[in-house]
Amino acid sequence: MLQTIEWKNSTLWLLDQTLLPNRIEFIECHSFQRVAQAIKRLEVRGAPAIGAAAAFGLVLGAKELCNDSDFGTNIERVAEELRQTRPTAVNLFWAIERMMSIIHKANCDKDIIDLVKDLEKEAISIASEDCAINHKISQYGAQLFNEPVSVLTHCNAGALATAGFGTALGVIRQAFSEGKITRVFADETRPLLQGARLTAWELMQENIPVTLITDNMAGWVMKKNMVQAVIVGADRITLNGDVANKIGTYSVAVLAKEHKIPFYVAAPVSTFDFTMESGLNIPIEERHADEVAQFAGVLTAPKGVEVFNPAFDVTPNSLISAIITEYGVLEQPYHEAIIALQQKKIKGVL
Amino acid sequence: MLQTIEWKNSTLWLLDQTLLPNRIEFIECHSFQRVAQAIKRLEVRGAPAIGAAAAFGLVLGAKELCNDSDFGTNIERVAEELRQTRPTAVNLFWAIERMMSIIHKANCDKDIIDLVKDLEKEAISIASEDCAINHKISQYGAQLFNEPVSVLTHCNAGALATAGFGTALGVIRQAFSEGKITRVFADETRPLLQGARLTAWELMQENIPVTLITDNMAGWVMKKNMVQAVIVGADRITLNGDVANKIGTYSVAVLAKEHKIPFYVAAPVSTFDFTMESGLNIPIEERHADEVAQFAGVLTAPKGVEVFNPAFDVTPNSLISAIITEYGVLEQPYHEAIIALQQKKIKGVL
Repeated sequence: MLQTIEWKNSTLWLLDQTLLPNRIEFIECHSFQRVAQAIKRLEVRGAPAIGAAAAFGLVLGAKELCNDSDFGTNIERVAEELRQTRPTAVNLFWAIERMMSIIHKANCDKDIIDLVKDLEKEAISIASEDCAINHKISQYGAQLFNEPVSVLTHCNAGALATAGFGTALGVIRQAFSEGKITRVFADETRPLLQGARLTAWELMQENIPVTLITDNMAGWVMKKNMVQAVIVGADRITLNGDVANKIGTYSVAVLAKEHKIPFYVAAPVSTFDFTMESGLNIPIEERHADEVAQFAGVLTAPKGVEVFNPAFDVTPNSLISAIITEYGVLEQPYHEAIIALQQKKIKGVL
Repeated sequence: MLQTIEWKNSTLWLLDQTLLPNRIEFIECHSFQRVAQAIKRLEVRGAPAIGAAAAFGLVLGAKELCNDSDFGTNIERVAEELRQTRPTAVNLFWAIERMMSIIHKANCDKDIIDLVKDLEKEAISIASEDCAINHKISQYGAQLFNEPVSVLTHCNAGALATAGFGTALGVIRQAFSEGKITRVFADETRPLLQGARLTAWELMQENIPVTLITDNMAGWVMKKNMVQAVIVGADRITLNGDVANKIGTYSVAVLAKEHKIPFYVAAPVSTFDFTMESGLNIPIEERHADEVAQFAGVLTAPKGVEVFNPAFDVTPNSLISAIITEYGVLEQPYHEAIIALQQKKIKGVL
């Protein structure tokens, strides 16, 4: 499994996901600005991976400010620049918050060089914890499957979207290894084809049988009983269990309901937004028209066509059969289950 | 409006739809083989357009056989080759049948040159009738709309898919001219992007406001109440009202049901298969994996990925609010309404 995110000799190495599967290249980030750019350009993407990358971005920003007399103000500026990269995935804000709390908790007279070391340790923890969390999610998730089934997934919630192993694809990997999942149907996930370019690639690397389909085939595949469950990742989960995820997830959830197929979401606790009651308030990123109207520099639509290009949608909790976290599987009513999760978090049980 | 199909000086000119919107080029067909190839390659596509093209293909085939001592056997071979081009759209078989009946009805001693003239007349009638039929469909369809709404369409059922004006896009054109439709959301329609390349192009040519979306955005657009109706064309409609149409239509119909949005189908009577009870029996064409895994010669997925690429799906009658024909609007129960249509056809009322 290729490493999506690696911290080596005070440099962040990011696997450039915009070039997959045709080229495997790494981006060498020496500055927080380069990390911010990589997040904006989707060179690194996937909620947990964005969180980890931003944490390392903050380390790079802090290093630059080692001799800055106004470290406090300027590190806040770095944090803000990282926060501004993408609006929807909450892991980004969560990771930056966790990093900033190291700074806020530090004694005023603490040496900045020591503080930077603490920040580096914390970012490394965020990444390594994410990997461990994914394995836990995967084990809980695999328990939802009994007899061998085919599943459908949308976008990429794999090793590439995390610091390793993956959430939805982690569950698929684990259940495949236990003989409970035999084939994966991967929606190609327009406009940026994360399903075709990343999910199919990850699964083929490990010889997990995968069939690529266009997004508009998902309903027909269900109708023909070619899949028996759906599993996806998440970018933000609100207190009531509404889930923001890659555009198209909502349609797949409606189709799953119509076909009485379970629709599972796999995500770490860092994807939960405990400050937000429902998905109605989640800010949805809209991206450039060219993502829809061009491919590989070739126009796919008339020049100047008007485009609507939301990067995410929100699936209401009523369409979700279960949410798989590193602390177990949440079921309806989600509000209670998520409040209980929040309480555990406050008490430090997590 | 560009002419999709034109018969000039014993030559069939087809607008090459695979090159749109980037290039406008016409294919000059001097042989039935070239027509068959154009249908297979989707250089001409859309159920009514395929029917008209095949009719002219048969004329070209008959011309070649003018001095053939075994005209009867060999024209049947031509018809069969044209029938073998694509399996799903019934207009293809309907048009060939109509052309062949001219031959079957002819006296044995009829001069073949005269017979070819009759065939040419019949093919010209098929094309010109199609144009008139589209206008009737459009007028009936526009009556379904009252206050100004935005509609969603999938694939291309426009002038490009017919001998002129269009079925679903014909209704949209008419209702737009009456102020009842104000904007069209066009699904791009993967894998071959007929929505992006053809529908958006047709509408922009006439200054009808169009917003291009990827197929997986349709559900979210409905959820956000950005569209109030769906209208699509059809490739085959069975006696019970089941509708085969471009892959993804079924998903859109399920999404429309979930959002309580009417889902309309517009098609001429030549799209009805009066010999088939239900959509379960409609043969669904599967096309090459490269259509999904490549774009403009660039791989969009890992080399060798397994692909499922059905070109059509079947929407059950229960999801269809109305079927708009040149004889009026059919509503549930469709079986009765379609049998009545068949009776009219037998009696020659049509």
